[in-house]
Formats: sequence, structure tokens, C-alpha cells
Amino acid sequence: MPETRWDRLWTDVHLATMTDPSLGIVRNGAIAASGGRVAWVGRAADLAAPPERLASEVIPCGGAWLTPGFIDCHTHIVFGGDRTGDFRRRLRGESYAEIARAGGGIMSTVRATRAASDEDLTLRAAARAGELSAWGVTTIEVKSGYGLDLDTELRMLDVAAGLARSVTADISPTLLAAHTVPPGYARRRDDYVRLVLNEMIPAALDQGHATAIDVFCEDIAFTPDESRAILEAGIEAGLHGRLHADQLSDLGGGALAAAVGAHSADHLEYLSPDGVQAMAEADVCAVLLPGAAYTLGADRRPPVATLRRAGVTMALATDANPGSSPITNVGMILNLGCILFGLTPEEALLGFTAAAARVLGLERDRGTLEAGRRADLALWRVADPAELCYWMGASPLTSLVKDGVPVRGSKGS
Amino acid sequence: MPETRWDRLWTDVHLATMTDPSLGIVRNGAIAASGGRVAWVGRAADLAAPPERLASEVIPCGGAWLTPGFIDCHTHIVFGGDRTGDFRRRLRGESYAEIARAGGGIMSTVRATRAASDEDLTLRAAARAGELSAWGVTTIEVKSGYGLDLDTELRMLDVAAGLARSVTADISPTLLAAHTVPPGYARRRDDYVRLVLNEMIPAALDQGHATAIDVFCEDIAFTPDESRAILEAGIEAGLHGRLHADQLSDLGGGALAAAVGAHSADHLEYLSPDGVQAMAEADVCAVLLPGAAYTLGADRRPPVATLRRAGVTMALATDANPGSSPITNVGMILNLGCILFGLTPEEALLGFTAAAARVLGLERDRGTLEAGRRADLALWRVADPAELCYWMGASPLTSLVKDGVPVRGSKGS
Repeated sequence: MPETRWDRLWTDVHLATMTDPSLGIVRNGAIAASGGRVAWVGRAADLAAPPERLASEVIPCGGAWLTPGFIDCHTHIVFGGDRTGDFRRRLRGESYAEIARAGGGIMSTVRATRAASDEDLTLRAAARAGELSAWGVTTIEVKSGYGLDLDTELRMLDVAAGLARSVTADISPTLLAAHTVPPGYARRRDDYVRLVLNEMIPAALDQGHATAIDVFCEDIAFTPDESRAILEAGIEAGLHGRLHADQLSDLGGGALAAAVGAHSADHLEYLSPDGVQAMAEADVCAVLLPGAAYTLGADRRPPVATLRRAGVTMALATDANPGSSPITNVGMILNLGCILFGLTPEEALLGFTAAAARVLGLERDRGTLEAGRRADLALWRVADPAELCYWMGASPLTSLVKDGVPVRGSKGS
Repeated sequence: MPETRWDRLWTDVHLATMTDPSLGIVRNGAIAASGGRVAWVGRAADLAAPPERLASEVIPCGGAWLTPGFIDCHTHIVFGGDRTGDFRRRLRGESYAEIARAGGGIMSTVRATRAASDEDLTLRAAARAGELSAWGVTTIEVKSGYGLDLDTELRMLDVAAGLARSVTADISPTLLAAHTVPPGYARRRDDYVRLVLNEMIPAALDQGHATAIDVFCEDIAFTPDESRAILEAGIEAGLHGRLHADQLSDLGGGALAAAVGAHSADHLEYLSPDGVQAMAEADVCAVLLPGAAYTLGADRRPPVATLRRAGVTMALATDANPGSSPITNVGMILNLGCILFGLTPEEALLGFTAAAARVLGLERDRGTLEAGRRADLALWRVADPAELCYWMGASPLTSLVKDGVPVRGSKGS
């Protein structure tokens, strides 16, 4: 029996602790939190005394399933404007070039983001984060990358970090100044790379929000050499490295991420077998983003079977953004991960918890249900955790717990 | 000014009346209901007097968009049991035969449905209908087809019809006794067809719930000749004809639906150009079901461009069922219709309203916003109706009106 009672104890619950490839299932389990951390987790039968003697508050869960709060490790939820018009144009058969000429495309989002007030950016990003939260998400990575000038990139990071004030989630901001080469720099790309290296990275470090640096390495964005220079500078400065890699063509992005010691390579539709090997050897996580592959109608899939065999950690994320993945429905991403990419439900669920925590460098803090981990918990009205990947209806979340405190009941209340 | 005041008048609203291919948009509109019917619809500026003089209740909508209540014209939401295990097995690489041997597949749903109590079937189907309702659906077609014996088929129709007591939607039950050939009849298929013809159809008519007859015409189900016999008998008896047609192979299902005068042919991945022509000439609706194509990983798409050119009415539906389309999220179906099948957002939205009403033979009663139509209304927090097809988050429904009465506010309350 503990000397001091636990703050809270959840009983009558099945646990998916995410501590092994079969989800670390504990049926008829119990979990306790004190001081915002998991204090005890195990089989209810192993509790040392009746629940009410062990905790100040006992919360019976009616046989629900409990997982760690989900971690969305790749999003672009801070942006201005609207791309519904692009979506309509594209489905009428207009090309990307025609859409861009009509004022659409990524540059329309950059213009709208630059023009938006902090308050407007915050309000709309908070609504998107709230939709993630309704699907059990308690940690959200948020990238800059629609500013592409010093001021707006910093504003995006500031708005991202500030979301934690209005959303019950921790925010992990990432500097993605190298999202695309902005207008005015097409003929002097080096100047933009220098701006990122010499001004944006130092300024972001001074600002203190960003914990990671990310680059879009692609023919339409930054070359491998440019990507390497930016990643190395960011990593050298203490940021985690991330890379939008091998999404639309094989530029050796996976191997590049491995060479610079990045935490993850993301997308990976064109990742080569050598890239898989390099990632496995350097312990780089793969972040799979089926929302983009689906929305863009990609005909390639990431080499999931090869990644699996090589033992690469596979995370899964929404990639929520207005152009290529307008999706804040985590269930749909879990389902796409299974249906489109061939993940098992177990891999998909680990991809939003334990694996996603590794991507963000937070694996000792969250992503599994273990004593000492942050008590971010999601309770689900399902008969089997795989149901979260299977039936696409409303979110079956019944309760969300952040830092040991229940913050959200069912029905979004 | 009307002699008697309207019951209710919705103002400060944009209307998608669904009366033309561009959605019959009326910006800054107003709509009135009396006695459960639309009493007036038009531009707010054309109202004959100030709103409060015209209606007993005035409901300002804050610039929301208003559509007819959605119509899901193809569902299988009444069923027993669970197929999460099948889903997991399939993603581990097991074949359908292996899954069936392990106790899965459609026959597991038939066994579970036969074993389930009416109360259990109702409770679980009502939850699924509630998820549709959260996405603005006010009319749901519900098929039998997991009974495959006289008693259970009738029970399914009874449970379906009874859903209207617990869900704010009208239910349109369909007899799908010819869903698959049940165990025990493999070597005497004719006996089962005779059972459908001589006992099930007459009993369903006596029971009085079913308004349509449906057949799954496919190699793994019923031949075109068997399908024709059952459809003709049902149509002769006064039911609307429906046909699961050309989903997995081209058996001339579209042409068969046309030949017998069916209301619709559904699925249509393998529909031939001749089939399109026959459907166009006989004015048979196409019901597109992208949830199944997506979930099954189909490599064929229905010939949407050909159907469009031929002027065939295209409806869109969830096909909600435990095996091939475990989806009650209408937004996801709208999105799949656009992304996977190449519908425009306008076609997708018409597919869940005006076109779906035609499929159910209800086009004079609902599916558009016109004076005299049933006042089933959905209010949406979107800047553009196309957003319903575009951003996949929580349902943006803010209010639902059934028969002129607001029944549901935002947040599922």
C-alpha cells in the first residue's frame, strides 16, 4: 500500500499500454496517477488494497479501453486562408498550374498566413487542434512553413506554442522555414538557404519555441545538398532533425536523414531499399502520412513491409494541412494507414503513441502507459482497440486525461 | 404577407437548395416551414415583411449554410456481431478463405444477426443511425440481408422500420433476402430463389415495411437470371427495384436494372458503356459506393465520366456495413466520392440529397429545398458547401431540423 494515496485511480478498464508490438494489453487493469505522472499500472487483481483506500479519487470506467493520449507528430495546423476553392477546381479537372494561376496552391496559403493576424491564426488552429483532441490527441507537433520570411516563420512558431493555452494538448513546434522556395528567390535560391541558416535558425533558437528543424527535400522544394546544410545547422544548434523525404521521387531522403542523425524521415513513398537500410542502421523513425498519399491520389506506397522487416520504427500522423491532407480525423488516418499502406491495427496504434513519442524525442516521457510516464490518457468506448482503426463513425473517445486530470468527457464537453 | 403566420423562419442563412447542378445556391436566403413542410424559400430580400411578422418563431443562423437533410440511400446498418477481428486478420495477410474458416466473413454476421435479440439489433443499429444523423442525415434506407431465412429477414425489416422511433430520421426498409446464398442451399440454389419468390416477398409485403427489393447480382451471389426473377417479382408486387450490380465483374447488371425498370443500380465498378447507355435510356439512377471500393482496395472505379456525359443521375451513399464499408461518417464518403471516384463536390452533395431522393422514389417529397417539400433541414458551420467534402474533421453540423422542428443542436446535443 502506498504511503501517500494516489491522486486518481482508474478501474474497470482494459489497458493498451503500448509497451510491446501487441500493444502491451492488460485486460481488467487499473492505472493510477499522482502529480501528473503514472504512479502505478497493472492488473486490477494486483492492487494492494481496495481502490478507495489507494486513491483520493477512484474512476470506474465501465470496461472501456484506455490508451496513452495520442501523439500527432506531423502537422501543419497553423495557416491562414482557405483551400476549398482549390479542391473544387482540382475536381473539375484543372491542373496545379491552372489552380496556382487562379490564385490557389501553397503560395495562396503563404499569402493568407502572412496577412492573417496572430489572433485569427490562433483561433483557427485551435479549432483544428480541438478536432485532434476529440480524437484523443494530447501532444501535437506543429510546423511553421507558410511564412517563408523571418517575421512570419517566427509568428507561426509563436502561435503554435501559444495553442497550449487554449487546447488541452502539449505543442511541439518545428521550424520548417525550408518548406518551399518563396517568390522572389527562384533565381537566387542560395540567398534563401542563407537566410534560413544565418537568420531564421538563430532567431528561432532565441525565441525558444522550436524543438525541431524540418526540410522539404524534393525537386519542387530543396535539393539534398540544401536540405543537408539546413538540417546539419539545425541539429548542430540542438534541434531534432526531421525531413520530408522521398515523397514524390527518390532523392535519397531516407539515407540523408540517416546521415545527419535526424529523428525521422517523413512520407517515404519513394524510399529505396538502401534508404530503408540506412534508416534502420541509424535508428531513424519513419513517419507515414497516408492522408497525403490518399488526397493526392499517389500511386506509390511507402515500403511498409521492408521497413517492418528492417525493424524501423513506424509512426503515423495526420499531416493535417490545407493542401495535401485536409484531415484532422485521427480515426480516418488510422484507417488509411491500414487500408492504404497495409499497416496492421497494432502498428497504426503504436504509430500514434509509442512510435510518435520517439519521433519527438519524448519516448521517456510519454507514448506508453508505464510508471513515471506523463499521465496523458484516452478512454475509448470500443470492444477492441483495433476498432479505432476499423469503424469510421464518430470518435469513440469517452474521456481524455491530461497530466493526470480529466479534461474532457464524452460528446466533446 | 401570409394569412396565417409560418411556424418557423430561418434567416441569415445561405441556401444550397439542390435544385440545379450548381446546387441551386441562394446567398442571403431565408426559408420557412409550416406543418412540417417548406412553406417558402428564397432571398431574404424578397420576404414580404419583417421576419417576426411572418413567423411564430424566427431562427437567425449566423450566416450558416443550409441544405436539405441528407439522404443515405444504401445502408446495411442492422446487423449482429462484430467484424473487427476480420479486419485485423485481413491486415495480417490472411485470405478471405482463411478468415471464413476462422469463423469470420459475411456468414459470421448472418449467424450473429440470427442469434441477436431484436433489442440488441435495435440498440446497435440506432447508434449507427445516430452517427449518420450527426452528419445531417434525416432519411436512411436500411436493407435486410443478414438473415437469409424468412424469420430473420422479416425481423431485420421490423427492426429497421422501428429505428424511426429512436432516431430522428425516416427509415426506408429494403428487402435484400437475395444478399448471398445461405449455407444449406449451395447445391440447391433454386430452392432458395423459390423461397425468396414464394415466401419472403409475399411475407414482406404482408408485413408492410419494405418499400424496395434488392438483389446482389455477382458470381459469388446471384446470377443475372436469378436476379431478374427476384427483381421482377418484387417490382410486380409494387416494390421499387434496386440492384447490387457490376461491383466485382461485368455481369450486365446495369443493363439488367434498366430492363426490369429498377430505380437504381448500385456499385458499378465494372459497368460497361452499354450498361451506362441502358441506364440512361431507362432513367435508372447510379448509386456510387466509394466506401466499399476503398475498404476492399478495389482497383476499378465506376465510369463516372461516362455516366456524367450520359446524364445518368448519380447518388452517393455510405453502404454502411460491417464487412466492406464500416463507415457511418458521411463526410468521409463525400470526400472518397471526390478523391477516389472523381466526383465534383457539387455532384457529391447532390448525390446525398436530390439524387438520393430519386433512388428512394421520394423526389417529390424531399431532397431539395422547395415549397411543399418536407422541411428536413441541415445547418452547417462552413464557409462553402464544398467544405463538407473537403476538410475531414468533426461533423460541422450545427443544427438538424426534421419535419420543420429543430431536433438537434450542435455538439450532438
